[in-house]
Amino acid sequence: MRSAETIQTIGVVGCGLIGVGWIATFLSRDFNVVAFDAAPDVEQKTRDQLDRIWPDLEQLGLTEGASRERLTFSPSLKALSKQADFIQENIPDYLDAKQNLLQEIDAQTPSDVLISSSTSGFMKAELEQKCQHKDRIIVGHPFFPVHLLPLVEIVASEEAGQIADALYTRAGKAVIVMNKDVPGFIANRFQETMWREALNMIAAGQATPEQIDRALMNGPALRWPFMGPIMSYAMAEGEGGMRKLISLIEEEGPYGDDWTPLPMQPITPAMKEALISETDTLFEGKSFQELLKERDRRIIAILKARNA
Amino acid sequence: MRSAETIQTIGVVGCGLIGVGWIATFLSRDFNVVAFDAAPDVEQKTRDQLDRIWPDLEQLGLTEGASRERLTFSPSLKALSKQADFIQENIPDYLDAKQNLLQEIDAQTPSDVLISSSTSGFMKAELEQKCQHKDRIIVGHPFFPVHLLPLVEIVASEEAGQIADALYTRAGKAVIVMNKDVPGFIANRFQETMWREALNMIAAGQATPEQIDRALMNGPALRWPFMGPIMSYAMAEGEGGMRKLISLIEEEGPYGDDWTPLPMQPITPAMKEALISETDTLFEGKSFQELLKERDRRIIAILKARNA
Repeated sequence: MRSAETIQTIGVVGCGLIGVGWIATFLSRDFNVVAFDAAPDVEQKTRDQLDRIWPDLEQLGLTEGASRERLTFSPSLKALSKQADFIQENIPDYLDAKQNLLQEIDAQTPSDVLISSSTSGFMKAELEQKCQHKDRIIVGHPFFPVHLLPLVEIVASEEAGQIADALYTRAGKAVIVMNKDVPGFIANRFQETMWREALNMIAAGQATPEQIDRALMNGPALRWPFMGPIMSYAMAEGEGGMRKLISLIEEEGPYGDDWTPLPMQPITPAMKEALISETDTLFEGKSFQELLKERDRRIIAILKARNA
Repeated sequence: MRSAETIQTIGVVGCGLIGVGWIATFLSRDFNVVAFDAAPDVEQKTRDQLDRIWPDLEQLGLTEGASRERLTFSPSLKALSKQADFIQENIPDYLDAKQNLLQEIDAQTPSDVLISSSTSGFMKAELEQKCQHKDRIIVGHPFFPVHLLPLVEIVASEEAGQIADALYTRAGKAVIVMNKDVPGFIANRFQETMWREALNMIAAGQATPEQIDRALMNGPALRWPFMGPIMSYAMAEGEGGMRKLISLIEEEGPYGDDWTPLPMQPITPAMKEALISETDTLFEGKSFQELLKERDRRIIAILKARNA
């Protein structure tokens, strides 16, 4: 397969909101993009959308050589397949349509080119069913708005995963290469979990939709952009961090059994080891005092930023 | 009970991290504070902590007349009880200790003074058990760090809830008056739900702790400070918003049953009505195009702020 460093031209198939977000992302980082969409007037519409969001990318910083002029449009899928070093597919999320399109791209594209689907709901195993070269079919799931949110979740074979990781990183993304083909990946699962927990509380008359959003936005969500749920729970235990949290759970049992119908997993020795060592990694070796100062500085900045 | 406008002096009982956060909050908004804690050297320690966090409050904006000099220390709980127009209790979260302390404060304090507990884990019904004037015992649960995060969750009788709402709002807080005495209130329940969902994924080998935090921090969490889970799901449906989301669920059934073990509540007509009307309230009548621009502007600002 083509290595990430040699990839120069990205083929973008499907120029809806996701496709345009990818086009903007890749152009902003010094790639060529060739786009295809069967819809009428696609070039003008895409360029209009691109012009609308380009100032956002300028604000976040372009690489040298980045230019909207490096976008071209292909008259056919076949022509695109000959030009692209990497293909990003972004048609609406219907399984049949995705399977048929991927089959078509797979049949026309040199076998060393990766084909990545932006699907938010289907698994790699489902998407690749009609393809001959299954190893180069991957999930590269972005988060909306694609040109602004860094997250890309990848499901891929080992070699393809390494290449896609390097490529999306070159494109400025924060990449998660999933260990398994997991339904919903990570971020959408947590969004769904929060939605369902919200409905639980609303159904029980415990809170209203407005109360739920306002509580989260004015409380824990002000930390979440720089401190995820694992880091937040570790910080809550002070200097003791994740080690202390797990000890407390081991000694006293889980806290909050009447807070949610989600059952509490027993923490196995392997999970304990991973939780402790990866929390250390996430905190980048900073001391607790440094973390406190950083937290407070960032909360103040986010309190101002959220009213931008 | 004393009305919120007439409250001038706040009694703070317990000067740990939560207590100091409350002291700073109230001083920054033009209140007098009288503090008590049985620990040795409490005055010096508290003033040192206060000096450390005061610049943060200056950055967020003090009201005229706000001054650290309006903090005094009381030699006894009894003396504090005579001076305070409103009492905020912040000792460590052990039920026995809280119940006994609240009983003591209740017995010594004029019956028109509200007594608010910062508890994060106990219900009003538990806390007030040994008190004579149960109606003035309330939960006023802040979020840590107290001087920075606006959220306060209140559980109270109707009259006490109205007064506490007005008082904490005067103190610059974002107040949620709970409809019921709910275990874990709102924000902690969602934190626990996310923690348990994280453990589910880790136990199943689907994701590591580091992947989970990084996925959320680089994806949905960048929107959550200004767009909670309800607003996020509504925005994802474009112009159609919450109405379209609910129609889709009604027509096609819930999405994501393989994404989380949390069951999906059926959406009753009353829930549907609340979800639609309260989402409209949360969006403040802004058009979808306005919301898009605002979203993108705020994400860019938060991307910068989170590295502050």
